[in-house]
Amino acid sequence: MARHVIAGRRCLVTGGLGFIGSNLALALRRDGAEVTVLDALVPRHGANLHNLVPDGESEADPAIAVISADLGEVDRADVRAATVGADIIFNLAGQVSHVDSMNDPVFDLQVNTASQFAFLDLVRRENADAVVIYTSTRQIFGKPRYLPVDEEHPVAPVDVNGITKYATEQLHLLYHEVYGLHATAVRLTNVYGARQRLRDNYQGFLPIFVRRALDNESISVFGDGSQQRDCLHVDDVVECLVLAAVTPEAHGEIFNVGNDEHLSLREIAEAVVAAAGSGRVESVPWPADRDAIDIGSYFGDSSKAKRVMGWEPAISFAEGIARTLEFFRARREWYR
Amino acid sequence: MARHVIAGRRCLVTGGLGFIGSNLALALRRDGAEVTVLDALVPRHGANLHNLVPDGESEADPAIAVISADLGEVDRADVRAATVGADIIFNLAGQVSHVDSMNDPVFDLQVNTASQFAFLDLVRRENADAVVIYTSTRQIFGKPRYLPVDEEHPVAPVDVNGITKYATEQLHLLYHEVYGLHATAVRLTNVYGARQRLRDNYQGFLPIFVRRALDNESISVFGDGSQQRDCLHVDDVVECLVLAAVTPEAHGEIFNVGNDEHLSLREIAEAVVAAAGSGRVESVPWPADRDAIDIGSYFGDSSKAKRVMGWEPAISFAEGIARTLEFFRARREWYR
Repeated sequence: MARHVIAGRRCLVTGGLGFIGSNLALALRRDGAEVTVLDALVPRHGANLHNLVPDGESEADPAIAVISADLGEVDRADVRAATVGADIIFNLAGQVSHVDSMNDPVFDLQVNTASQFAFLDLVRRENADAVVIYTSTRQIFGKPRYLPVDEEHPVAPVDVNGITKYATEQLHLLYHEVYGLHATAVRLTNVYGARQRLRDNYQGFLPIFVRRALDNESISVFGDGSQQRDCLHVDDVVECLVLAAVTPEAHGEIFNVGNDEHLSLREIAEAVVAAAGSGRVESVPWPADRDAIDIGSYFGDSSKAKRVMGWEPAISFAEGIARTLEFFRARREWYR
Repeated sequence: MARHVIAGRRCLVTGGLGFIGSNLALALRRDGAEVTVLDALVPRHGANLHNLVPDGESEADPAIAVISADLGEVDRADVRAATVGADIIFNLAGQVSHVDSMNDPVFDLQVNTASQFAFLDLVRRENADAVVIYTSTRQIFGKPRYLPVDEEHPVAPVDVNGITKYATEQLHLLYHEVYGLHATAVRLTNVYGARQRLRDNYQGFLPIFVRRALDNESISVFGDGSQQRDCLHVDDVVECLVLAAVTPEAHGEIFNVGNDEHLSLREIAEAVVAAAGSGRVESVPWPADRDAIDIGSYFGDSSKAKRVMGWEPAISFAEGIARTLEFFRARREWYR
């Protein structure tokens, strides 16, 4: 839909070797953009060099430039040139593990906030005309007071990750207010799909479910598994981020982006097992370290994103999980 | 009121050489506490070695131990010992300049958030029974949607300082939720009184007004000066912080702390000039760098603090400003 607007634009994707970033970088290339990705390749984060291999091919797209650096390294010439020269910055770099953020809050702040403060200050000083699309998280809301959660819902982070991501989200909006930066924050819910980190447990429950089904292992559902989530396929997220970039009315705004399809954790687990034809679902008690940061059911109200950007999620969970399993089955060795 | 509970308690005051911190440290000593102050003595912040001189004396109280360090230096033996050994931590250290926070957001984040994350993580790991009282700021609310501003008012920081202070406030509350830390956040409004940094313009309009009146210079009021504020005398703040520490029902809570006496900036300036018997008030247009972060009128709703802690501001602006001018007249050379 936004193809004609993206073609030829210089796009920088921070965190572009990660899950969402790599899917976005490949989509931007397909639409004719000039794409550079900036990624710190932090060992426990989502970066994977295989992520830039387009579907159906075996080598990374050589037209996508890769800079291996933290986005806070603003004194590096390559980081600086890519940042200052970009028309559109898709700012996805960050740590997403809630458990890791609790174990090392200082590092989480460094990655998710301090680096971002340095990066954004470079952008506003030397590339103030850029469009900057930041991916925030539903984690900032904590346990919902009401459902679905809209943009007016009070913020009450239940982990360090929610605090550090919220600070960075707010800096984007502040720089819009004060300096006129074309910045937008998109608060994502549970995203799944191709190129997600499968090998360990740092990116939420969805990749764990996918890995366990593929490996014919049991999927643990905590408690009765009745908590609902609105899973979103990564292709729908990519479409949303591109729309945010090319829609001037979206700049300076926050969007809660979720899905109208609400499934319980148990239903999600069962759908993954059914689609995979392997694995099984079992109930286990809540582990103590998760209990403290559980938020119950969550689903977002995406009506603002639909109204302002004309975005609409197009991929059902049944279809999305089938695509996801197919992707990983064909490339299992790259994601172990 | 809380004297019998404070006597003999080991109190650590971070930012204890600064304005509010030093008044608090001296009050705690008067009430019989063992007091250590921790202060980084950042040149443009509020620290002043004369601040620990009790009223009517000429030398700093030798019974107050002083550690010159940033509270984030948690590997230093003296910082560690003072932190781990405290019964009550009054956590006041931070940068308060809104303009400085915009000019160097990375430094503001370092001082107000990164150091605090390291410090609080030490507290929760090695002194989880401590009471921790954190001074936050009304700056987190931005331009009020309604007045008076209560604790439920949406957060929308209009400067970097509001973002970094809010992140740290939220970490205190998170550590209460997750680890049971006895942490309380007190959001202060415009505080004035003895020991405030007078020599430059980094601590808000009140010390500027006081200095200019004392120096028989003109006080500039931006625009028509009709924006209202609820000024709070530092002795009322000290009473509130001590009450927060000794009131178990206050722990895990946030309090907006302001004053029911609302004065316009012009009224405040005129009251300062009248009390000083020197200086004059003049109207000037809004400077461009302040306009972007102006919030209009602000006054807080303190009813939660009154209800839960039995706190009540006791000092009118007329009385408070007279005390303030008397203090600085007698010690003018220490605050130039």
